[in-house]
Amino acid sequence: MEYEEPLFFHVIQYAAGADRDVVNMVSGNPDWEPPAALREGLRTYADADPADFQYPPSEGLAALREEIAARRGVESSRVIVTNGAGEANYLALARALERDAGEEVVLTDPVYPYYPGKVSMLGGDARMVPVAPDGSLDLERTLAAITDDTAAVVLNTPNNPTGAVYPPDVVEAVAERCAAHDALLIADEVYDHFVLDAPFESALSIDAGDVVVTNSYSKSMAITGFRVGYGIFPESLVDAAKTRHMLVNVTASRPPQAAVLHALRETGPDYYEAARDRLRDRVDAFTAALDDAGAEYTRPEGAFYVLARFEGFPGTMENAKRLIDEAGVAGMPGDAFGSARADWLRFALVTPRVEEAAARLAAFFD
Amino acid sequence: MEYEEPLFFHVIQYAAGADRDVVNMVSGNPDWEPPAALREGLRTYADADPADFQYPPSEGLAALREEIAARRGVESSRVIVTNGAGEANYLALARALERDAGEEVVLTDPVYPYYPGKVSMLGGDARMVPVAPDGSLDLERTLAAITDDTAAVVLNTPNNPTGAVYPPDVVEAVAERCAAHDALLIADEVYDHFVLDAPFESALSIDAGDVVVTNSYSKSMAITGFRVGYGIFPESLVDAAKTRHMLVNVTASRPPQAAVLHALRETGPDYYEAARDRLRDRVDAFTAALDDAGAEYTRPEGAFYVLARFEGFPGTMENAKRLIDEAGVAGMPGDAFGSARADWLRFALVTPRVEEAAARLAAFFD
Repeated sequence: MEYEEPLFFHVIQYAAGADRDVVNMVSGNPDWEPPAALREGLRTYADADPADFQYPPSEGLAALREEIAARRGVESSRVIVTNGAGEANYLALARALERDAGEEVVLTDPVYPYYPGKVSMLGGDARMVPVAPDGSLDLERTLAAITDDTAAVVLNTPNNPTGAVYPPDVVEAVAERCAAHDALLIADEVYDHFVLDAPFESALSIDAGDVVVTNSYSKSMAITGFRVGYGIFPESLVDAAKTRHMLVNVTASRPPQAAVLHALRETGPDYYEAARDRLRDRVDAFTAALDDAGAEYTRPEGAFYVLARFEGFPGTMENAKRLIDEAGVAGMPGDAFGSARADWLRFALVTPRVEEAAARLAAFFD
Repeated sequence: MEYEEPLFFHVIQYAAGADRDVVNMVSGNPDWEPPAALREGLRTYADADPADFQYPPSEGLAALREEIAARRGVESSRVIVTNGAGEANYLALARALERDAGEEVVLTDPVYPYYPGKVSMLGGDARMVPVAPDGSLDLERTLAAITDDTAAVVLNTPNNPTGAVYPPDVVEAVAERCAAHDALLIADEVYDHFVLDAPFESALSIDAGDVVVTNSYSKSMAITGFRVGYGIFPESLVDAAKTRHMLVNVTASRPPQAAVLHALRETGPDYYEAARDRLRDRVDAFTAALDDAGAEYTRPEGAFYVLARFEGFPGTMENAKRLIDEAGVAGMPGDAFGSARADWLRFALVTPRVEEAAARLAAFFD
């Protein structure tokens, strides 16, 4: 396993070194304020008793697990607080692959690149299934890819990078096929607070086979650096996940757990609605400019991203750099996400300068 | 891999449920104040710009890595900030075992139980080498255990649970034998600030083969719940460790990294010296009581623990519970640490009530 600096670092560094002002639409870091109660929670914790600075339970602060469980409608015994959704996905994939129930993990193409990276690290084989032209899950091909060799299927919905939100009946059909082949369904719902036009329906409600739902507060509370995530495991898989979590990390860090707990209790729906409103405005502004530029794209149903294809301007690294230098807009080359969208560029709408970027793109492609 | 609740939880719960006052000498959580600057660092961070709440570099905040590197006299490129020393040990063991250079990991008996747990999770075989009667490393048996099947040797010095500090020439002899058999030496030095009678000499100074030094601020800053640790890897192994770190955790949590950085910069040697003085006083009080009780023990050279054996009172779980109920002192049964000290009990000196516990033990065994 050799280290490759993630492609997005490379693009960000190129943009930072450019000889002009560049709007960074590369990475998925929210640019808005966290909940006020999150800052309060950190301040309060800073004055806590020394005993509160010591190991929390390995599976997370009991009050935080109960708060999560109550919100998600599950038993708190199923909740493990992890070092971000990244660790929760790792725990779920590790469990799937160590059961001797298949070596393949079915993923979509395009894909969030950490998924195939984890699969490969854990000794599994990633099986990539191209999504439909509009970015939605190609259900027929996905079901066909699930066999007795399948250890797990990972669905990321709302999806990075396509912006698709998979309908509940589609996710349920995948879960049923997984159950028929003793495969684990892993639903990474980290963008669940960013569905733009309808309430999000979680895979937690599915009553078929083994489903692990992973999530974190990185996006919903604008704190990607805090690393407070969680996995909700079927009762039969909790113990194995807890053991691996303990042996890898002992526990997730306690100060951010305390801050998130306070923020969960004290933050009303307005905070999250304001974030969705902001994102809707940005989607409108950006897609209008894409229309002006004659680009092909799908309006995202959720998450932070727009994939776009410009006529005669494929989404190669070379063209991503040209866009930085000549248009002053930095996006991610599509081939960072697999081969199915290699011609496309991904733009993250987590900058206050979306309108400016949109105007620059429209002018550049005029 | 099935989940077992760590034995120390079981003992702590039993003590908490006892019908009397019990001095908790079970777990290794410092009971003293963290550095004042650590609390300041958290408060300052709570008011930071939203951008400072987002992902730090995967390998840790650059300023923190540089601060660590300067203190340890290494290039900052070799430092990876991890979710505690626990993750650093996991990264090192994973690298050792995935190289196809042996499947055995040589450990001491008694042993910190997470080491064999990690080895087994990673598919390796733990090879336990009993320590000498006084708790020091049995060099001859350790060297004999290192063969071409050896992937790694883990040395924890100052040692939990024996309190031994391995002399530099002993560690160097192990490193040389490791080098001759393409094995990785992992030196877990998490108690390096708690050597009582001499300055600590780190394995970093060894110039033989591949040595990974792991450490954390959990003990030295009395913040076991913060999960800020690090590994210092040989240049040739840094990239693989960074990749696994990224794929498992993305990064360690940022608020505690910022707080530790501030505390490192602003905390003078007095803080650490006061902690050692406190520990020396506790060792004196506790070992005096062990003398009164006619117990066998070795005075610790470092770390927080005293292993003791009482005539006719072996360190079984049953006797640990009897000590809770009848003497009001909770210690760990020795067989939690392997078979070599199964007759002993481990007492952690991280309670302000060490003298009281000592008096209770002396009276109980009188």
